Amino acid sequence: MKHLISSEQFTAGLLHELFVLADQMKSHPRDFDDILKHKVVATLFYEPSTRTRLSFESAVQRLGAKLISTENAREMSSAIKGENILDSIRVVQGYCDAIILRHYENDAARKATEVASVPIINAGGGTGEHPTQALLDLYTIYSFKQKISGSKVAVLGDLKNGRTIHSLIKSLSLYDDIEIYGFSRIGLEMPAEYISYLNSRQVSYHAVSSFEEIPGTVDVLYHTRTQTERISDEKVSSGEIIIDREVMKRFSDATLLMHPLPRNQEIAQEVDFDPRAIYFKQSENGLFIRMALLTSLLGATVGR
Amino acid sequence: MKHLISSEQFTAGLLHELFVLADQMKSHPRDFDDILKHKVVATLFYEPSTRTRLSFESAVQRLGAKLISTENAREMSSAIKGENILDSIRVVQGYCDAIILRHYENDAARKATEVASVPIINAGGGTGEHPTQALLDLYTIYSFKQKISGSKVAVLGDLKNGRTIHSLIKSLSLYDDIEIYGFSRIGLEMPAEYISYLNSRQVSYHAVSSFEEIPGTVDVLYHTRTQTERISDEKVSSGEIIIDREVMKRFSDATLLMHPLPRNQEIAQEVDFDPRAIYFKQSENGLFIRMALLTSLLGATVGR
Amino acid sequence: MKHLISSEQFTAGLLHELFVLADQMKSHPRDFDDILKHKVVATLFYEPSTRTRLSFESAVQRLGAKLISTENAREMSSAIKGENILDSIRVVQGYCDAIILRHYENDAARKATEVASVPIINAGGGTGEHPTQALLDLYTIYSFKQKISGSKVAVLGDLKNGRTIHSLIKSLSLYDDIEIYGFSRIGLEMPAEYISYLNSRQVSYHAVSSFEEIPGTVDVLYHTRTQTERISDEKVSSGEIIIDREVMKRFSDATLLMHPLPRNQEIAQEVDFDPRAIYFKQSENGLFIRMALLTSLLGATVGR
Repeated sequence: MKHLISSEQFTAGLLHELFVLADQMKSHPRDFDDILKHKVVATLFYEPSTRTRLSFESAVQRLGAKLISTENAREMSSAIKGENILDSIRVVQGYCDAIILRHYENDAARKATEVASVPIINAGGGTGEHPTQALLDLYTIYSFKQKISGSKVAVLGDLKNGRTIHSLIKSLSLYDDIEIYGFSRIGLEMPAEYISYLNSRQVSYHAVSSFEEIPGTVDVLYHTRTQTERISDEKVSSGEIIIDREVMKRFSDATLLMHPLPRNQEIAQEVDFDPRAIYFKQSENGLFIRMALLTSLLGATVGR
Repeated sequence: MKHLISSEQFTAGLLHELFVLADQMKSHPRDFDDILKHKVVATLFYEPSTRTRLSFESAVQRLGAKLISTENAREMSSAIKGENILDSIRVVQGYCDAIILRHYENDAARKATEVASVPIINAGGGTGEHPTQALLDLYTIYSFKQKISGSKVAVLGDLKNGRTIHSLIKSLSLYDDIEIYGFSRIGLEMPAEYISYLNSRQVSYHAVSSFEEIPGTVDVLYHTRTQTERISDEKVSSGEIIIDREVMKRFSDATLLMHPLPRNQEIAQEVDFDPRAIYFKQSENGLFIRMALLTSLLGATVGR
Repeated sequence: MKHLISSEQFTAGLLHELFVLADQMKSHPRDFDDILKHKVVATLFYEPSTRTRLSFESAVQRLGAKLISTENAREMSSAIKGENILDSIRVVQGYCDAIILRHYENDAARKATEVASVPIINAGGGTGEHPTQALLDLYTIYSFKQKISGSKVAVLGDLKNGRTIHSLIKSLSLYDDIEIYGFSRIGLEMPAEYISYLNSRQVSYHAVSSFEEIPGTVDVLYHTRTQTERISDEKVSSGEIIIDREVMKRFSDATLLMHPLPRNQEIAQEVDFDPRAIYFKQSENGLFIRMALLTSLLGATVGR
């Protein structure tokens, strides 16, 4: 793997290597202090995503690499607005050893690889891929359960528009014996193409019509916000499921409550201190898995 | 002290420790090069304050810590504008070891401490506290006079709206034998609550009605800009005192002329090269006292 | 040289020293890892120029210096918009050891030196000087040709408004036996003052009226974009010269095609893979020559 553009590049083997490395980085951070010491990494963000940017920028520096950063790449130049992305990539790679790119056009990261002499990491953007979000989601399940195969995962919220959900379920299909339950309001159901994708890979997808049909024994409850910016209200039924303390009572002690953040009201704040509510740990795992990814792409030799 | 939110947390003992440490950092900077080497510090600014941010960011790095930074934290996410500050804090603290927060709401820093697992430093904002400004003001008096007790301090300008002035005089009340003179235009006088506060702590406050009543022997002349954005002109009398060369003639060689900056016209530029005009050294002292504060909050062991 | 404000400060001797140092930095980057280890450098940008900023910020860090940065220096303070630049410089130099300044006013960098106690580097801005662009252009010719004296250089595009062109030709006049050919549309010709400047320094300037008159044996073809933001269309003739594969056939294998970037359509993308098209290498050279410049201004002792 030279670049990370899409979660479709993942294999179970590659993921396992990254998970093991991320675990080492979490438990022995100082062993990795200087392993990218001679590298410079650029974060090139064409739309704001402060949490993703800060997570990457912490990862870069915890590995000893230097950072050059812009959260405002649309203004590459005061002279030409909207310069050709390929020219920008070719200029910036002259200053650094890897580029973390967030762009409002779905295809920008892939296009960047056409001219890139340094690794490109897709940091999301547009309505397209956000592969490091899928990475941190899977790593979070792995780090709590020590395995992913055999998981029962319920996905909630905006199953139609949520790219996080789509990347997650596609990545889950790399593992054996996965069962997925989907519940949403009418109008936000899982698109047929993803259900076909899962079926073609022997993953059971259960579209349930009431929240109560989701077993209390699921391993993961994965909630997401309604992407109101992309839907018109009249087409979506009311009755968004709000996860609160009362709702959580029905689930087992081993059920993990996850969310990609940011959230609206779909998870009540009273749930934050439930030990099963792991969304902030999930976010923190992004740091370690991004450290592992950077190390892997930049070809550092890692040895303890 | 785990967090620094308000200048009301200061004690004379705590301040003395910070001053001594800041003095060491100023005289032997290389001894402190790496003492926060394994730390990552975030600057999370919800409103612009470039000078405060750059001062902190230089301090962070002179101690060997890594920096992650946003001057645009209102855009934490392209999806949800105005995310709950507590969620933002909980996410960002997963990437770092301390958060320097500037927020437009007075109470944001205090609220942040409710969920914070890392130290929070209030970098000002809104109309509320700006405790590191008070720190650098006191440290500047200390570094020029070797003591603060016994000081005569004249405060000028906008005594009504200037939070800097309010924090300064409250902090001065921690010391013995302080006399404060206040002069302002009509409409910008010191609010009664602060005068009561001083009186209850045995600090003499002399509200004078003409600038000439301020003794030429004061230790400090502390001027401030009129916060025109918060007042309506018709309520304030004319006659702002402008400190120029002529005015400075009346004061002793030992009188320090201070200002929190930025300034408007209330101190004439011709005064800048008067050795008593120390406002740029005052600003520079912010670097050293912030280095001392960071070291103290992050629990580094400091030994020469 | 304490500050770098104008390309008029260059001498052939000074340039040669910088070129030799930049060459060393390119070939043995790790020898220079820590030479500015105890320095902090500020990038203070009052107008966006992401590529110039990132180039400097990579240079600063590759030398081991720390970086404090703002791409939004107009908002130095939420209180006073448009603070006196001299006050801003005096505050910021209290936090750092050098300031890289980009300002929309031509004269700002020079004015800054009036109060500066640390080196100021002019990073361009306004319609004035951009001396490190001239530096990287000359260094690029040097690095491909091993010498600059004796060069035949053709300048194209907007000869009237392009400050890059003006700095380049003035700097070329420091060398012996230079011939310059200029071709532009009517309305964008080289101003008479620059032609006089060249003539007074024994540099031949040939203003040609058709592109075909430029010899196929020139050492450098230097194209530039039309600064449409500064011209009204009716005053400029049509017929911009577009460099494409066909056009390049007429030139020798040794002709270097340069451009300061960003470009519009004046160089067709099909030319990018022609080995003579060196504009991305030219941009990358900015990194090494800026490293050399910083090292020189900050007085680091360089020895292998």
